[in-house]
Amino acid sequence: MVRWEPGARERLQAAALDLYATRGFEQTTAADIAQAADLTERTFFRYFADKREVLFHGQDLLQEAFLDGVTSAPEDASALEAVAAALQVASSFFPDERRPYARLRQAVILAHPGLQERELLKLAALAAAVAGALRARGVAEPRATLAAETGVTVFGVAFRQWVAEDEERPLAEIEADTWADLQALAAAPG
Amino acid sequence: MVRWEPGARERLQAAALDLYATRGFEQTTAADIAQAADLTERTFFRYFADKREVLFHGQDLLQEAFLDGVTSAPEDASALEAVAAALQVASSFFPDERRPYARLRQAVILAHPGLQERELLKLAALAAAVAGALRARGVAEPRATLAAETGVTVFGVAFRQWVAEDEERPLAEIEADTWADLQALAAAPG
Repeated sequence: MVRWEPGARERLQAAALDLYATRGFEQTTAADIAQAADLTERTFFRYFADKREVLFHGQDLLQEAFLDGVTSAPEDASALEAVAAALQVASSFFPDERRPYARLRQAVILAHPGLQERELLKLAALAAAVAGALRARGVAEPRATLAAETGVTVFGVAFRQWVAEDEERPLAEIEADTWADLQALAAAPG
Repeated sequence: MVRWEPGARERLQAAALDLYATRGFEQTTAADIAQAADLTERTFFRYFADKREVLFHGQDLLQEAFLDGVTSAPEDASALEAVAAALQVASSFFPDERRPYARLRQAVILAHPGLQERELLKLAALAAAVAGALRARGVAEPRATLAAETGVTVFGVAFRQWVAEDEERPLAEIEADTWADLQALAAAPG
């Protein structure tokens, strides 16, 4: 009999992050996480393929949010407007109450090159998925990839700023500032 | 006695690419490559750590070219101008006579997810190195990272276009068009 555990996923995520931050990622096993969350190891593996996935489950949801933003943009929206819509959905995905969790997660990832690589690859996959959604809207290449990668760059830079120590602005505001900075940067030189 | 083999690196690269394209990357060993280039396996390993590195040696040189471009830009150049200088150096790194080799390499990489991951990670490392060079010039974060990642995105999109079938424009021209497209994209919506 499979027992449904209310909030099991969230309890496992919170316990994992706490252990990764205090004991270290390498020194923590799936069994440790399950125990700390007062759940069985079997329950752990019902939600996550391995102990790394606990940190990246959110990124899969983020990708869905991005794609929702692109596909639900008005039919006549430009590539830029569709990407801007995706960034807006993405920022609402990270309300301020998630910032302490996101900060802790970022610290764990920065401490492990293997986790950093996984994050980079997930972001690259996100950009590729967004480019695909733009092509499905009729945006031609290479513009679809350029728009998608630019959007993911803006999101990534803004997100890392959002989790920086002492940063208090909401993500949407940082994203807007980052777009403005990008516009200044993209202006032709000379 | 170590015998110096004139053009050994280039011969190994050409032989490797030919074998990867005809026989397949997985089916080719370092010994096969050495034999096809009429060199010993020991010579192969004097130049390359493994058979993947044959494909990525150029990317290390590209990173040097990018960093040269950034650090040799005039002292009063903006972050943008320094990145533009890097892109210019990078495009001169890929004259038209390299295009057939680059096309073949791209096809091999696209056929192997492991090689694609390696390419993505190398590009991310390139962006991080460029951001570091910009910070060394006094560019503050997050602008340094934004400028560096944007520059690498423009380069990457332009490069993939450069190796596309039937594409005949030189890389510098495609880069300029990509910058122009980015400017249009970065313009605020609405």
